Amino acid sequence: MHPFLWTYWNKLPSKGRISILNKSWYKELLHSLINNSSQKRIKNIYEDISSYEKTLNEDGYLIIKFFLHIDKEEQKKRFKIIEDSHSMAWKVTEDDWKQNEDYDRYKKVFNDLLKNTNYKFSPWNIVEAENKKYATLKISETLVKILEEKIDSIEKARKAKVEETSVKIETKHKHPSELSNYNLSLNIEKEEYSKQLHLYQKRLIDLQYMLYSKRIPVVILYEGMDAAGKGGNIRRLTEHMDPRGYEVIPISAPNIVEQEYHYLWRFWTKMPKDGHISIFDRSWYGRVLVEKVEGFCSYEDWTRAYDEINDMEKQLTNHGTILLKFFLQIDKDEQFKRFKAREDDPIKNWKITEEDWRNRSKWEEYENAINEMLYKTSTERAPWTVVESTDKKYARIKVLKKVVEALESKIK
Amino acid sequence: MHPFLWTYWNKLPSKGRISILNKSWYKELLHSLINNSSQKRIKNIYEDISSYEKTLNEDGYLIIKFFLHIDKEEQKKRFKIIEDSHSMAWKVTEDDWKQNEDYDRYKKVFNDLLKNTNYKFSPWNIVEAENKKYATLKISETLVKILEEKIDSIEKARKAKVEETSVKIETKHKHPSELSNYNLSLNIEKEEYSKQLHLYQKRLIDLQYMLYSKRIPVVILYEGMDAAGKGGNIRRLTEHMDPRGYEVIPISAPNIVEQEYHYLWRFWTKMPKDGHISIFDRSWYGRVLVEKVEGFCSYEDWTRAYDEINDMEKQLTNHGTILLKFFLQIDKDEQFKRFKAREDDPIKNWKITEEDWRNRSKWEEYENAINEMLYKTSTERAPWTVVESTDKKYARIKVLKKVVEALESKIK
Repeated sequence: MHPFLWTYWNKLPSKGRISILNKSWYKELLHSLINNSSQKRIKNIYEDISSYEKTLNEDGYLIIKFFLHIDKEEQKKRFKIIEDSHSMAWKVTEDDWKQNEDYDRYKKVFNDLLKNTNYKFSPWNIVEAENKKYATLKISETLVKILEEKIDSIEKARKAKVEETSVKIETKHKHPSELSNYNLSLNIEKEEYSKQLHLYQKRLIDLQYMLYSKRIPVVILYEGMDAAGKGGNIRRLTEHMDPRGYEVIPISAPNIVEQEYHYLWRFWTKMPKDGHISIFDRSWYGRVLVEKVEGFCSYEDWTRAYDEINDMEKQLTNHGTILLKFFLQIDKDEQFKRFKAREDDPIKNWKITEEDWRNRSKWEEYENAINEMLYKTSTERAPWTVVESTDKKYARIKVLKKVVEALESKIK
Repeated sequence: MHPFLWTYWNKLPSKGRISILNKSWYKELLHSLINNSSQKRIKNIYEDISSYEKTLNEDGYLIIKFFLHIDKEEQKKRFKIIEDSHSMAWKVTEDDWKQNEDYDRYKKVFNDLLKNTNYKFSPWNIVEAENKKYATLKISETLVKILEEKIDSIEKARKAKVEETSVKIETKHKHPSELSNYNLSLNIEKEEYSKQLHLYQKRLIDLQYMLYSKRIPVVILYEGMDAAGKGGNIRRLTEHMDPRGYEVIPISAPNIVEQEYHYLWRFWTKMPKDGHISIFDRSWYGRVLVEKVEGFCSYEDWTRAYDEINDMEKQLTNHGTILLKFFLQIDKDEQFKRFKAREDDPIKNWKITEEDWRNRSKWEEYENAINEMLYKTSTERAPWTVVESTDKKYARIKVLKKVVEALESKIK
């Protein structure tokens, strides 16, 4: 009911803790290889695993992989012993015996699997396990060696950092100015708006049920300048949808628990079940927008994030998720007008704070960050839609239309 | 795979948020009533629901329950309309039609259910739903009325609190001094220890697999004075168990996220799946120990907690969970020796902090709190075992033996 890596994001240890996995994400790969899944499916799983391990590794996670090897005769012997024991007999299944009969094919499959996933950042440790005492010892020794090396390398890196005196300056590399391509004065007549709003909202009800019956998950995310109208836009999108099938997830700064994990963890754990819709009000793109501009993460963190994000989105679409990304854009004057209007409105003035004015003062830096984001993360499988939002009504219809079209093309 | 309320603890909104549930925990009750489950099972569900709603209500949660009523003909008509629609036809199942044929029986069952769960703190609101516009209006009006009343009552309570000048003094009510009944000098010979340790640990391996195959969940919790030896005791318990089937859950002060929920929330979400074992190193009893003694919660909070805890434990055992509670006891002199030994040990001295010495200075208050806890929460279904722990070996064997006996008596 979720992309297969979702399970492992949920089981991810927080910083300083250890998870020991029996089988792990390689179960999915083994299953596909043994059952001769399509080449495309197998390729997807290889890609997903490789990018998952890379992502964790680059965040400082240590991944230690053991493969315990026994030969056909030994396996047979062990199955027999377990079957003969009183309390554990139920552990040996028909599938286990089939695997033993089919030992040579399994061996070949494991060989391929081990060779293809023996990454530099997370190599396999093969353990000859015929003799259990030998195996236990080898695993312990390997663990100690790898842990010591890691601790060493962390301490060396820390020292190097202290000694490094030059400050890293962001190269002012110009990315195509995507944002300037849009005509922010686009608008729609009130009557036409009501007509289209009704039309698309009604269509969306049907599409939601079709998605549900076909078990297709949908992720819709909103980013945008402050006061661009995300809240009202989301409300029009969900107004007539069945609330049992969608969830709106507001994203703000990570809390103290979330900070103990990879920054993508809190998004992975909120991904929709198959057939459901998650709408993110702000998203993982915070890493390359507010966190980058305000310096809440390091240069290494945000430069790495574009690949991490593209990888994650690929894992979602590999699973069959429909992913739609909207950037709501207004210009600086329009924002000023809206800030002022909020301040003057006794019901809305809690929505405008010092921070909003501070962010506004960095308008150009944000625009650069947005351009870089659009340039680097508009992939074929997960393109951005920039939404001209000076006229809120125009923006709502544009999003609704895009969502309806995307769902229709997937359902066909 | 969990007590049925576990699902709803997981879906509980944090403070200031709203959860809207379609069907909710009453699904379980309805299902049992319709399928003529045993009287015992039905009684258990009624008890679980009543204590769950009471527990939430007393913590300040507002529970609003709506029952939407239509008659047999109207239901039939609506099923037909849905079946005739293109996108939603799949929503009407054979079960739905059976329910319509069996309408009178369902009506009687719903009548009983509504009458028996119409609690003062969470009454039902019956909505005649033949006319959808009328129903929508009635629900909105009811919601507004209940929310306004609640906000009013909160403000009144806050005012009353400010005006109240007298400080609540804890009545020094004496509870039977349970702890003084134990002979802390009990001990075991080294040779006998090794023999029994081996015996019980081996037996535990078998029992764990039997539990797993019978899908019986187990909760084991440890409380005890600082330095009583909980860590080493747990290690001997789990040493030879299959790590795939148990989890040790260390409990410290609630973090900032956990503080946004009922205090039992973080324990509920960690309860074991059927067939698995959760071992809590400290537990929900923190509420009536450290939180009470240090004043981390209010007088109302901890006095209410004994009932809340007994209710929760009843919900667990109603589900078939084996629940074992161990209190590891040492005397004040023994603690002093252990603190000193830790301070002198360069590898262990991080384990001893200012806070440990501070807690120690409140030894008598803690002892009172422990006596009250033992007195009020030693129920037949979840009794406490006080473990004399001056001799660590003796304590380990006592716990192991108790666990083995409890599992054996359940498996028989």
